[in-house]
Amino acid sequence: MAARTLASCIFCKIIKGEIPSFKLIETDLSYSFLDIGPLSKGHALVIPKDHTVKMHELPDNYLADVLPVAKKIAVALGAENYNILQNNGRIAHQEVDHVHFHVIPKPSATDEEGLVIGWPAQKADMDDLKKFHQEVLSKL
Amino acid sequence: MAARTLASCIFCKIIKGEIPSFKLIETDLSYSFLDIGPLSKGHALVIPKDHTVKMHELPDNYLADVLPVAKKIAVALGAENYNILQNNGRIAHQEVDHVHFHVIPKPSATDEEGLVIGWPAQKADMDDLKKFHQEVLSKL
Repeated sequence: MAARTLASCIFCKIIKGEIPSFKLIETDLSYSFLDIGPLSKGHALVIPKDHTVKMHELPDNYLADVLPVAKKIAVALGAENYNILQNNGRIAHQEVDHVHFHVIPKPSATDEEGLVIGWPAQKADMDDLKKFHQEVLSKL
Repeated sequence: MAARTLASCIFCKIIKGEIPSFKLIETDLSYSFLDIGPLSKGHALVIPKDHTVKMHELPDNYLADVLPVAKKIAVALGAENYNILQNNGRIAHQEVDHVHFHVIPKPSATDEEGLVIGWPAQKADMDDLKKFHQEVLSKL
């Protein structure tokens, strides 16, 4: 399948070299570069060379290429602690409508650098979860 | 490479069926299931069938298998908005020492369900970033 690009997309322009970037690794299917509005030193983005807005729209071969690239970047950064994050939809904090995976070092426990995570966990009702599980299985 | 397992690891026990789980998709390399302490309805985990603590320690074939599985789960959940998250290290919010990828639906903009994200972005100094870029490239 040929990669899809979108003329007006900032990440498609970065891939095509129409906008400069601090490129890290480029493969046939992925392009990666340093974020210029970083949450911490080394914050990088891995983007598929195919214009899709959300992760679940991306062909599997593009998906399979992403994490081995993210791994090489994490190793090069030497980050002990870090987060991999990919957001889908504006209310889930997606700001550019081209799938992108963040590699975000977490150098310290402070909320002033790196990804800040809130975790409003619920305790699941086991009967409800059992029913819901059957529903999801029927769609897989 | 044979998968590594650790007798004391709760996720290794789930993969081996020693602890029950609401299993979703199982492949040769990955196992996925519903989280029983969910951030939102449908919160699922995808874990490699290889005991490594952090993402960058995982062999590439395991890494390549994860996102196509996460994609199938996102499609089955029918989530419009969701986050993919993987945490490395206690200060980066990792709670179980076996690599795991969260698929977390974000059904509404409220902080009471789904992943809550804080984003302390800095504006990078371009000269510093240029130097840092050269440093990282020398390690790739």
